[in-house]
Amino acid sequence: MSETPLRVVPLGGLGEIGKNMMALEYDGEMVVIDAGILFPEEGMPGVDLVIPDISYLVENRHKLKAILITHGHEDHIGALPYVLPELDVPVYASRLTHGLITVKLREHGQIRDARLNVVEPNSPLRIGRFGIEFFRVCHSIPDAMGIAVRTPLGVVVHTGDFKIDHTPAHGRPSEFASLARFAAEGVILMCSDSTYAEIEGYTQSEQVVGDALDRVISRAEGRVMVATFASLISRMQQVIDAAVRHGRKVAVVGRSMNNNVRMATNMGYLQAPAGTVMSLNDAQNLPLDEVVVLATGAQGEPTSALVRIANREHQGIEVVPGDTVVISASPIPGNETLVARTIDNLVRQGATVLHSRTATVHVHGHASREELKMVLSLVRPQFFVPVHGEYRHLAAHADLARATGVAPENVFVLEDGDVLELRSDFGRLAGTAPAGHIFVDGRHVWGMDSGVIEQRRRLARNGVVVVTASIDSHTGRPVRLPTLTSRGLVELDDSDAFFKNAAEMAYSVLEQDLDFSQDLGSRRAEVSKAVASFLYEETGRRPTIIVQIDPV
Amino acid sequence: MSETPLRVVPLGGLGEIGKNMMALEYDGEMVVIDAGILFPEEGMPGVDLVIPDISYLVENRHKLKAILITHGHEDHIGALPYVLPELDVPVYASRLTHGLITVKLREHGQIRDARLNVVEPNSPLRIGRFGIEFFRVCHSIPDAMGIAVRTPLGVVVHTGDFKIDHTPAHGRPSEFASLARFAAEGVILMCSDSTYAEIEGYTQSEQVVGDALDRVISRAEGRVMVATFASLISRMQQVIDAAVRHGRKVAVVGRSMNNNVRMATNMGYLQAPAGTVMSLNDAQNLPLDEVVVLATGAQGEPTSALVRIANREHQGIEVVPGDTVVISASPIPGNETLVARTIDNLVRQGATVLHSRTATVHVHGHASREELKMVLSLVRPQFFVPVHGEYRHLAAHADLARATGVAPENVFVLEDGDVLELRSDFGRLAGTAPAGHIFVDGRHVWGMDSGVIEQRRRLARNGVVVVTASIDSHTGRPVRLPTLTSRGLVELDDSDAFFKNAAEMAYSVLEQDLDFSQDLGSRRAEVSKAVASFLYEETGRRPTIIVQIDPV
Repeated sequence: MSETPLRVVPLGGLGEIGKNMMALEYDGEMVVIDAGILFPEEGMPGVDLVIPDISYLVENRHKLKAILITHGHEDHIGALPYVLPELDVPVYASRLTHGLITVKLREHGQIRDARLNVVEPNSPLRIGRFGIEFFRVCHSIPDAMGIAVRTPLGVVVHTGDFKIDHTPAHGRPSEFASLARFAAEGVILMCSDSTYAEIEGYTQSEQVVGDALDRVISRAEGRVMVATFASLISRMQQVIDAAVRHGRKVAVVGRSMNNNVRMATNMGYLQAPAGTVMSLNDAQNLPLDEVVVLATGAQGEPTSALVRIANREHQGIEVVPGDTVVISASPIPGNETLVARTIDNLVRQGATVLHSRTATVHVHGHASREELKMVLSLVRPQFFVPVHGEYRHLAAHADLARATGVAPENVFVLEDGDVLELRSDFGRLAGTAPAGHIFVDGRHVWGMDSGVIEQRRRLARNGVVVVTASIDSHTGRPVRLPTLTSRGLVELDDSDAFFKNAAEMAYSVLEQDLDFSQDLGSRRAEVSKAVASFLYEETGRRPTIIVQIDPV
Repeated sequence: MSETPLRVVPLGGLGEIGKNMMALEYDGEMVVIDAGILFPEEGMPGVDLVIPDISYLVENRHKLKAILITHGHEDHIGALPYVLPELDVPVYASRLTHGLITVKLREHGQIRDARLNVVEPNSPLRIGRFGIEFFRVCHSIPDAMGIAVRTPLGVVVHTGDFKIDHTPAHGRPSEFASLARFAAEGVILMCSDSTYAEIEGYTQSEQVVGDALDRVISRAEGRVMVATFASLISRMQQVIDAAVRHGRKVAVVGRSMNNNVRMATNMGYLQAPAGTVMSLNDAQNLPLDEVVVLATGAQGEPTSALVRIANREHQGIEVVPGDTVVISASPIPGNETLVARTIDNLVRQGATVLHSRTATVHVHGHASREELKMVLSLVRPQFFVPVHGEYRHLAAHADLARATGVAPENVFVLEDGDVLELRSDFGRLAGTAPAGHIFVDGRHVWGMDSGVIEQRRRLARNGVVVVTASIDSHTGRPVRLPTLTSRGLVELDDSDAFFKNAAEMAYSVLEQDLDFSQDLGSRRAEVSKAVASFLYEETGRRPTIIVQIDPV
């Protein structure tokens, strides 16, 4: 037990474990992989976004050497503006990812203080006693990387989000050679993407989507609109390529997509012949069958371009019969209804809509079971920790690891906050770090255990009733009938009589419990209890009740 | 135009058009097909269920001859307890459907007044001037029927929910012969199930699921739990059959499933050798590998048996490693997260979980494109109205109808409330009937246009702040600092100081606007406005603000 262990701590996913942040520690030095945000779930009303609880990192700030970023998606970089001011640590990322982080930090006014570093794949660097090497993987954004961390105990391989694509849209297949090289050095631990660990077979290549988009654009008799993620730069390239092949121009609609198109073009990640990409205004002068519109809104986001078009609320674009709309994404769980409604509204106006359920206009960016097995067989890690996925995905991935020869006792399905300690001959859970969530809401950042969410849920289900009573400050007796006001309560046919009865009930309670004359808290509680049970009897609901008693 | 038209009015789906209720009218006589409930969508907090607006039927009560029910699912029978007291009309249904309606009306204390009739398939009956004939279809509940309505203009064929299954679990394939017979008589109108009109090919047979369940139960080394819908009686039969074949007993868990098993067994829809189905208590005495548990909760419903088991809150059942859980259903849109969380919690406790994404343990009950085309080709209707589906599904089904030869101008994609008039030579939209939704919430039933839902959404997003002020009834001046109370507002670090500032702001407003001294409404509005903008500046949120001003 005297050997120095390697510590692995997944932090702050929301359902998806180890998705957004993970700490690696050896002998008093620590690196963190990724710093992403999460999108709030149903049942978190009014929460704008969720970030991992980083109190474990703050506590260990003196050990922390760097944050290493695998790729530029929000769920891997989005927490940096919240995390960097607390941690003040250098960030390492590939070129495009660095560009996206720069844009983000600039928006938050933090770019001056940030210590951002661009890393090239297969260019080892030393951070403290760790040897760091980024290696290319394929994912639904260019310049996605896996990360190898060399430690005295062996190499740690973290795949990041990945799939195996021999014909990716942006030209660089995953690098098996790097994985083989790490395997030859001896991999003590692999952490690998489990998102698709339940899905049999192989994930389809991006090329399938390119072919489908080409077919759609070549055959469409009118305008074509393609909605996708603003970060899915390879998809935009496929759309531009197909448009060029079939003599169409491309108009980009939506602020975030325009920003990314500009950035990606400037950095060389997006190529288009001069004059191909044009403003919507210029495109309006062309015949409809010479136009492709590239828009945000593939998830049915209420303020996105496509949704405004679908709702006839967009300034520049009106759907006309003959339009073809391609939703080049599949709905993230929870967004199904928003996406369905958007499609319905487009179809109502005469558009033909192609989406992932009806055409091959999207493939995922995560490896399926056969790919995961291939990577496990190639890397042959001593220990295995599935990451990126909900618990059932991790468990399925763990089964694959055992099936491909990792010793069963060396496979660890962790929960966020679990502290795993690995030594050269065995691993064990060695404690728990705080790993909750922090809500960002308007301008405020607040903790997970807050009662605010529960209060909001109750308000939403049942509404609120406010009871205001004035009492004589000498006698404690109510001086008049209390006032009742409600919001979000069940609609009542005879609400006047109903509220009058409730007010009389509150009055009589105040008349009765004069014993409590000095204790306003208790009297409030008595009134609240009486009004609550009256309301429950009348409406079958339990609204939030707020009682104010003013001595006058 | 002097010919009497046939009127078709789809009523009250929620997204799904014509799903839950449809009126057919000819020459002053009307029949209604189905009377279902809808499950509230996200964004309808606190709403227990939604029923169609039947004001059009109430208005035409004197014409209404009958409600005809296609099958016993909630979205086709669930509104009867709310509708029958208003309409007082006889109900016609097949035997099992009649049984389910009886159970439901008894629960609502309405069975004495109901006029329920059992109909046999292919036994024509006369209702007013309509000739009614039910015919068997396959769907995910036994005794599902399509309905033919003979009118002077020709036969109307309504398929109900259906698929074509040559090897259904409950033994009776769809009746093509009936459809052919109606076609020979001349079908003026077909209304057909569009749920799967976007899905290529054929829907798989229930037999596939039977085989998969058999395989799972034969291979499982420990206990097997199967979760499915309480109404999916054929699935229960498949589970019982497999259990019997492999020497296991079946324990049924969950109130609604127990009720339905009892009812279906009594009516002969469920067969099990004596001693096969037993209480959970008795099953606890058996070795785990001799037990199959049949449970509710396949949709992750929070109070269902399976979810309580997953959350370690069930009295009788605790998951042990070696248990196999089969979720024999696919998540209804909106329930994905609940189902996923349930699976995660079961896997955490060591269960192996099979679900529709990973195994063939569920097939749908709706026809896919090839089946829809076959029915269109067989029936050759003059007019076609796709029903049961969201707008895009109806539009896809309409395309199929045109492709199979229905004249394009005779295909009508309706919205709920559209009044379609058909004559022997043409059809046209002839107006709109009210077709909103009615919310059922606790014990109260209320209309769609209510502001209550919007108030609840706002409360949920932003919370509520109550300001209570006392003013001197003579001078109109505030007599002390107003009191502020909040619920569900963003958590604030220094909330005391913050609320004190807001109270002072409210005080100064009351000091300033003494002009309004007699008009409490305006003074409340002034205070509310000032507090709102203060709160927005401080928190970035716009909570609901309730101001009470008491003159003392």
